[in-house]
Amino acid sequence: MDSLKQRILQEGIVVSDQLLRVDSFLNHQVDPPLLLEMGREFAARFRDAGITKVITVESSGISIGFAMALDLNVPMVFVRKKKTVIMDQDAYVARVPSFTKGIVTDLAIAKKYLSAEDTVVLVDDFIANGDAALAIIKIVEESGAKLAGVGIAIEKLFQAGGNAIREQGIRVESLVQIRSMSAGKIEFA
Amino acid sequence: MDSLKQRILQEGIVVSDQLLRVDSFLNHQVDPPLLLEMGREFAARFRDAGITKVITVESSGISIGFAMALDLNVPMVFVRKKKTVIMDQDAYVARVPSFTKGIVTDLAIAKKYLSAEDTVVLVDDFIANGDAALAIIKIVEESGAKLAGVGIAIEKLFQAGGNAIREQGIRVESLVQIRSMSAGKIEFA
Repeated sequence: MDSLKQRILQEGIVVSDQLLRVDSFLNHQVDPPLLLEMGREFAARFRDAGITKVITVESSGISIGFAMALDLNVPMVFVRKKKTVIMDQDAYVARVPSFTKGIVTDLAIAKKYLSAEDTVVLVDDFIANGDAALAIIKIVEESGAKLAGVGIAIEKLFQAGGNAIREQGIRVESLVQIRSMSAGKIEFA
Repeated sequence: MDSLKQRILQEGIVVSDQLLRVDSFLNHQVDPPLLLEMGREFAARFRDAGITKVITVESSGISIGFAMALDLNVPMVFVRKKKTVIMDQDAYVARVPSFTKGIVTDLAIAKKYLSAEDTVVLVDDFIANGDAALAIIKIVEESGAKLAGVGIAIEKLFQAGGNAIREQGIRVESLVQIRSMSAGKIEFA
């Protein structure tokens, strides 16, 4: 997706060879026309998959998930992150370590919004080591819903997440793939 | 906004005489067409205010803020909630007690996304006692940006927030106003 690549080159900040900041259009400030375009692109790739719901994770995934769900004309459900142990019989909960924060987080989704009748796609801005995505994929399996695949806006190929999901036989679609950010230079795949 | 009222009556869950759950279309699962309509309505009310940015708060405000910003064709910025003390010279930070969680939260917005050239509107799903909104309003003042007003999707008139903001001479627009939820019954104003 060339417009996203251009935006990353223009405004992305390479904080380290692992960490890319896209706060100016995706993660803190959000550019609606670009996000609509990203949502349309994800929707196009999964158009024939019979998606009934788009799943994402608060907070950075919400705008992308919203834009994709809008184009597919289905609801979006965002997974909630909780810092405390959840004892909620009405929710699926998975515990994962957080890549960026170094703490444990509970991911929760109400059972009533995920059922065996659903075909879902999981989208997010980045997927680092894949722990959170794999935990949500387990939740989807537990619910009986069908997983059509995973969408990653910006996939950093040097982090394990995308391939960890592919290795489970799951379809992964990335809008942009970054091969390397060493020496502060972004190299797309 | 009649469609929102209808949706609240159909799907809203009155948890107590203070707490309304709208998880099925606004706060956990999100219905994009309804949100677009809410965003359009907010945009229409502030169309002539010269808005340059829509400000909201993660996570529940993001879909509303996105839809409004989309219609006004301006960026949306979502305030981040942090659980730890932030010592960040690049961010405006305000500390507030959380109404729903009983803890203290730091609200943060990067300084580069708010300036004296901006005219902003703050939108959110609910505003309870108004502490968070008033803290963000202070941040806006500190930045030198002009505040055109505050948009509340669902205003509970029996909570102090909306009027606490009005008392400061700030324009408040609500899509729906609820006068009472006693005995499990929603009474609109």
